[in-house]
Amino acid sequence: MLETQSRADDQPVVGEREADFSAIDKVAVIEALARVLPVGALMYEVEDLRPYECDGLSVYRQVPLAVALPASEEQVVAVLRTCRELGVPVVARGAGTGLSGGALPHARGVLLSLARFNRILHVDALARTAVVQPGVRNLAISEAVAAHGLYYAPDPSSQIACTIGGNVAENAGGVHCLKYGLTVHNLLRVRGVSIDGEIVEFGSHALDSPGYDLLALITGSEGMLAVATEVTVKLTPRPQLAQCVLAAFDDVIKAGDAVAAIIAAGIIPAGLEMMDQPATAAVEEFVHAGYPLDAKAILLCESDGTAEEVAEEIARVREVLAASGATEIRVSASEAERLKFWAGRKAAFPAAGRLSPDYYCMDGTIPRKRLGEMLEAIQAMEGRYGLRCINVFHAGDGNLHPLILFDANQPGELERAETFGAEILELSVALGGTITGEHGVGVEKINQMCAQFASAELRQFFRIKAAFDPPGLLNPGKAIPTLNRCAEYGRMRISGGELAHPELPRF
Amino acid sequence: MLETQSRADDQPVVGEREADFSAIDKVAVIEALARVLPVGALMYEVEDLRPYECDGLSVYRQVPLAVALPASEEQVVAVLRTCRELGVPVVARGAGTGLSGGALPHARGVLLSLARFNRILHVDALARTAVVQPGVRNLAISEAVAAHGLYYAPDPSSQIACTIGGNVAENAGGVHCLKYGLTVHNLLRVRGVSIDGEIVEFGSHALDSPGYDLLALITGSEGMLAVATEVTVKLTPRPQLAQCVLAAFDDVIKAGDAVAAIIAAGIIPAGLEMMDQPATAAVEEFVHAGYPLDAKAILLCESDGTAEEVAEEIARVREVLAASGATEIRVSASEAERLKFWAGRKAAFPAAGRLSPDYYCMDGTIPRKRLGEMLEAIQAMEGRYGLRCINVFHAGDGNLHPLILFDANQPGELERAETFGAEILELSVALGGTITGEHGVGVEKINQMCAQFASAELRQFFRIKAAFDPPGLLNPGKAIPTLNRCAEYGRMRISGGELAHPELPRF
Repeated sequence: MLETQSRADDQPVVGEREADFSAIDKVAVIEALARVLPVGALMYEVEDLRPYECDGLSVYRQVPLAVALPASEEQVVAVLRTCRELGVPVVARGAGTGLSGGALPHARGVLLSLARFNRILHVDALARTAVVQPGVRNLAISEAVAAHGLYYAPDPSSQIACTIGGNVAENAGGVHCLKYGLTVHNLLRVRGVSIDGEIVEFGSHALDSPGYDLLALITGSEGMLAVATEVTVKLTPRPQLAQCVLAAFDDVIKAGDAVAAIIAAGIIPAGLEMMDQPATAAVEEFVHAGYPLDAKAILLCESDGTAEEVAEEIARVREVLAASGATEIRVSASEAERLKFWAGRKAAFPAAGRLSPDYYCMDGTIPRKRLGEMLEAIQAMEGRYGLRCINVFHAGDGNLHPLILFDANQPGELERAETFGAEILELSVALGGTITGEHGVGVEKINQMCAQFASAELRQFFRIKAAFDPPGLLNPGKAIPTLNRCAEYGRMRISGGELAHPELPRF
Repeated sequence: MLETQSRADDQPVVGEREADFSAIDKVAVIEALARVLPVGALMYEVEDLRPYECDGLSVYRQVPLAVALPASEEQVVAVLRTCRELGVPVVARGAGTGLSGGALPHARGVLLSLARFNRILHVDALARTAVVQPGVRNLAISEAVAAHGLYYAPDPSSQIACTIGGNVAENAGGVHCLKYGLTVHNLLRVRGVSIDGEIVEFGSHALDSPGYDLLALITGSEGMLAVATEVTVKLTPRPQLAQCVLAAFDDVIKAGDAVAAIIAAGIIPAGLEMMDQPATAAVEEFVHAGYPLDAKAILLCESDGTAEEVAEEIARVREVLAASGATEIRVSASEAERLKFWAGRKAAFPAAGRLSPDYYCMDGTIPRKRLGEMLEAIQAMEGRYGLRCINVFHAGDGNLHPLILFDANQPGELERAETFGAEILELSVALGGTITGEHGVGVEKINQMCAQFASAELRQFFRIKAAFDPPGLLNPGKAIPTLNRCAEYGRMRISGGELAHPELPRF
């Protein structure tokens, strides 16, 4: 009697091997979509498609078959049903600020933009929740609830532009996620549409939801399980006060140890960031944050809360920093000074852009106590690859953002930068960490997933994918590598071959 | 080309209908298990099976076919492979303290006890993590790491006895989960075995794990997806100080509003509990906690942290309580007084046991602002069902624990208590809440899952189940109802029939 309930184990599961979409008929797809979408909600001329050809990882570019711009959940359902029927891939997109290529279009697929889902539907100040559409910008939520003394805590550096739907897809973090958690910790409910056009609610408006935790599962799933149409976020009371400590060190290892010592002392700062000397030098001439340029590394440690809490925490942080050998400790004396301390950190990416025609931002995590070790290894890699790297870290989380500087116009530099990045990520795994802290896997880190996971875990991922998206149409080729790809990647590494994605078109 | 990747949509998915295990050959199962387990690790005589016949929900009892007591992961793999081969259900069990019947044995199944997995494998005080086996008791973790000034935060009231494996299965909470989170928020990694005997790691030792969030999915899955063999928990620094405020109210609605006001003021207390007058009366004559017996409701609000933080938070709590109309406010002046305040709350369950031969503990959640409304509705139900109910709440979370008092020896009282409980849970859903906050669904609330979820969500649960356990052998009949059951339950409710589980044997 069990036979009828068994999955046939010899059947390939979606995701186990690369799918082939070459037979898709572009004209038929466009005609079918035109029947379910109003005028102005469907684009298919190349000049209209061009703005959608990449996200924040612009080294990969691909024009989609068409772009759909639905304005209602019914239209999303209609687009997904149409794509399901015709076997067409669908890539959902928010603001396109993602850094791992998660919203890179599929050549034979529909790019489903949620840009028109830009309304804040409901704010409940007492319950401290807001129901918003996925195309609402991260910062717009905080602006809308500021009058209630509330804000939405996760703060990716793209928060002016990035949307909450993309934040959910990538489980976005930010400078303050050490204390306030990642996106997944700040959600209550996601309403979404399956590839079958079925509406499913993940999570609930209550403390905990019975049944399997599908809310956590959908968060960070990079658009591969469902398309979100409504998100309920938790709001956080705005702290009365925030103050920032800037500490300088004459040695990166000492700075790394100070981070571990702060956490070990039971302090959970609102933010705990580290920058190495090349990074401070790069930003200082750009924004004049007043960083000590002779320091080998600096830490920024923020405390927030009531005035009493902040004073007490800052006193403890100062003690730990002094005991860890800080050569200089400054505490922001005003809100203006606090913002100045942060201005340098926040300018790290544009500063990298000023130093070099191109830069490649990595996103590995490692156990905090291995920070110094990792920095030394990166230094050695700089020599080996002949490329500079400046380092900014969400140090409290052990989340690294090395920025590898290169020039894509110099033959071979992009490839060297990618190999350099891959080596950092694989060292992260070897040190007990992971290949991504908050940027997602996308197309960028799909090979390194083979280093992160054994085939038992990958097979379990394929089964999850099949449980939501049996035909494998939602964002194919992203986030979870096929076993084939991992086998080939293993062969390439053994023969010293390159790590890039030759099958994807390049800028 | 998509055909081979499609799930055949007309095939029944595991969980959609009740499975039939009547053809299982007991002797063959015992012989097969005896081949893979050492002497002493397999029991099948009725007198040996009897201690396993129920968990903390003792109104349901069932002797299993056999009990396996593996002592190594290899033995767990061997038991699961054997059961998979013979099509035999497997129910995993920790300490058996669960309150929803999640560990109720299956008559034709193997009860897999993790009692011998009782070792703490590794403590990393710097990273604030511990790797433990699933049979380690919740409190034993805190005891083992106390010397480092750390503890494991989730504190279900059974924490002396309950095990971390069971906590993971039920996503257990506790008095302090308002501030410190449920089990899922205090885990880094679970290592487990699938029904195929495959070892899978869920989560990682780093900040975030790439790929789908299988760690959150496995947490709270009530033993239906995999069997845990190793758990990595996060540890929390023990606060320097804790103090408790006791506030009395002459009206339950005012007490409920005070809870909402504390949270709305941006305060996140370490604990925020509410008891109604029947509850304080019941515990007072038992433990003499010094509760004001003339109050219609009392609140216990705990603050922890450094001395400065606690002083400042208590001052703000006092202000809010006074503005909410508290008739009396006391602050614990010593650790002894703080423990005395809590002694009453912690004695609520045994006190109910002294008042009545039997009691039935419910576990719904509601939005905090509906607390008063719910209390009034429960009062009306007491009259209708002719049964008393005393109310203790994790008020800050909106998590209710009404204790319905009854006498199972009085014909019809158990059924009335169950119908009373079902009405509370369904009202929780109607008020925007859920049927369980921290006790799980098990067999107890499986009918109410039909009220909580639409069939789209239930079908998604079936697909998740099939993705982990294709033959449906892990804990069948628990947590997720079949569509058949929901259809029958709907018919029963319309015809006013009873809500109990006639198919399960009763004590």
